[in-house]
Amino acid sequence: MLQSRGYGATRADDPLHPLDFQRRDPGPHDVQIDILYCGVCHSDLHTVRNEWGNTVYPVVPGHEIIGRVAAVGDHVTRHKQGDIVGVGCMVDSCQRCDACGIGLEQYCENGFVGTYNGEEMHTGGMTYGGYADNIVVHEKFVLRVPPSLDPAAAAPLLCAGITTYSPLRHWKVGPGQKVGVVGLGGLGHMGIKIAHAMGAHVVLFTTSPGKREDALRLGADEVVVSKNAEEMAAHENSFDFILNTVAAPHSLDAFLVLLRREGTMTLVGAPATPHPSPQVFNLIMKRRHLAGSLIGGIAETQEMLDFCAEHGIVSDIEMLSIGNINEAYERMLKSDVKYRFVIDMASLGK
Amino acid sequence: MLQSRGYGATRADDPLHPLDFQRRDPGPHDVQIDILYCGVCHSDLHTVRNEWGNTVYPVVPGHEIIGRVAAVGDHVTRHKQGDIVGVGCMVDSCQRCDACGIGLEQYCENGFVGTYNGEEMHTGGMTYGGYADNIVVHEKFVLRVPPSLDPAAAAPLLCAGITTYSPLRHWKVGPGQKVGVVGLGGLGHMGIKIAHAMGAHVVLFTTSPGKREDALRLGADEVVVSKNAEEMAAHENSFDFILNTVAAPHSLDAFLVLLRREGTMTLVGAPATPHPSPQVFNLIMKRRHLAGSLIGGIAETQEMLDFCAEHGIVSDIEMLSIGNINEAYERMLKSDVKYRFVIDMASLGK
Repeated sequence: MLQSRGYGATRADDPLHPLDFQRRDPGPHDVQIDILYCGVCHSDLHTVRNEWGNTVYPVVPGHEIIGRVAAVGDHVTRHKQGDIVGVGCMVDSCQRCDACGIGLEQYCENGFVGTYNGEEMHTGGMTYGGYADNIVVHEKFVLRVPPSLDPAAAAPLLCAGITTYSPLRHWKVGPGQKVGVVGLGGLGHMGIKIAHAMGAHVVLFTTSPGKREDALRLGADEVVVSKNAEEMAAHENSFDFILNTVAAPHSLDAFLVLLRREGTMTLVGAPATPHPSPQVFNLIMKRRHLAGSLIGGIAETQEMLDFCAEHGIVSDIEMLSIGNINEAYERMLKSDVKYRFVIDMASLGK
Repeated sequence: MLQSRGYGATRADDPLHPLDFQRRDPGPHDVQIDILYCGVCHSDLHTVRNEWGNTVYPVVPGHEIIGRVAAVGDHVTRHKQGDIVGVGCMVDSCQRCDACGIGLEQYCENGFVGTYNGEEMHTGGMTYGGYADNIVVHEKFVLRVPPSLDPAAAAPLLCAGITTYSPLRHWKVGPGQKVGVVGLGGLGHMGIKIAHAMGAHVVLFTTSPGKREDALRLGADEVVVSKNAEEMAAHENSFDFILNTVAAPHSLDAFLVLLRREGTMTLVGAPATPHPSPQVFNLIMKRRHLAGSLIGGIAETQEMLDFCAEHGIVSDIEMLSIGNINEAYERMLKSDVKYRFVIDMASLGK
């Protein structure tokens, strides 16, 4: 077994602390990665605190991983020692179902294997994530990180980036379209950048007037304060697509009525308690759609990284020593981060 | 002005009663129709009793109209005296917006003119519906009724038929697909017949085990009692499309989880109080869609009538004398009709 060192939790009410653990020895199709950076996602916190009720302890979170290839198995063809690579939310899937067959591993009919708190396919134990010095991943689930991307700022692309890229691509966002992004956090700030790069006219919806300047800087063409009924009314029936990144319960109707006929609002955040029930009337009157989307497939994640390289897109990050991770969680809960924490894994050795 | 005689209401708490009223004189593009039959839709009752809060009295309901052309204006080219024709839920629209331009008058951006309780474009008054001896309608909103269709049983096609046909067509239902229809009432029974004729494998969901035989007779391949959790679970992740015709508040989640990846459930009934809020998780995990659909455009309504003629589809009806309309409303409230009441307008003269 491969020795690993990281930060993890052993109970729901336990702060993250240093943890030694073991991973499988790299097999012939595996890539062993020395982790350089790991982004901090809200899912990490939910899992550490068992807020979804499915955490198996000890847990080592982290699924926005950037690292350098330390070694590769004999049959590995896609990556070589020294490459800068990424690992996102998945490290395996069945590879046999229809979804896997068309590169939609995130919708694997037998359930993909999460990068942490997932059922490891080889050891019979659980997977451990990227708040650690190393990781072992099947080459198919390892992404090439284009050299032009800053590796630390690229880390959040592996979750926040693909979670917004995938729906924007799937619903064919592009030039001539008016696209809304609801919420300016880790996901929302990536949504603005990517939708802007895709050529859409981007409108950011926020409850915080103070975020206006920042949203414009990130690439929004307009900013609407969603609590301002007049501002909202001016946009009725005008959006081709709305990407809703807000997980806190809120009125979906306020945004559904902004969609044009046959427009779609896609939710990428799942609230702990449901949103107020949307009015069916708002769907019926314009043949509108409410949909959801989950991260993205592996091929699509590579496409996203290449797209980001082409357009010079990375996340706006705040770098963190891993010893400060518990404080960072508290700040994340207050949305006090612009716009993603990234752990500098060099701090692990200190 | 043209003299009309029908049944209408003058107050929300007023039963329907005989009413004389006036319509516009037929203009050069108008068709004057002697009404033979009129279907009874739940919307009629909602409007008569002002349950949507927008009724202007007096109101004459009815928007599933079959009649014979009595006279046509000088410029009318599509219809001639003696033709059997139909009129559905709309009698006008702006004819200038993008939606009207592509035959989606039901989504007219300036609001279509409802067949009753709508703002009449010529008189400045309101429109009056089909519980009457005659009606005057612009030829564009008059449908040809294929001679092979029984005229009385064809009446419900103008609302119940097109309301189910349009989404089944829009979401491309066809052979090789598994399609659900939720609810076996006026809409649901048309949904089964039409989806079956389109070649889909049709599953009817009902809360009433007693409806099983009838659903199979109407063309369902399977019937699932939606209160039976085991029966429901057997269908998880398997439906390409679900047409939900139930307007009473119910759990949408129970049906959303039955959709395959990227499947759509389309609602055609708007509940008076909202459905319980659907779980966002059920949308996200399979990139599923929840949508709505409103009747259909005029060209599509003609297409539907021709499709029904080709496949020998009409509504299952119970014929009614107009003097019994108030009783029929009470029975409709108890779903005590298989599956649509149609008024024989000859009874008006008696």
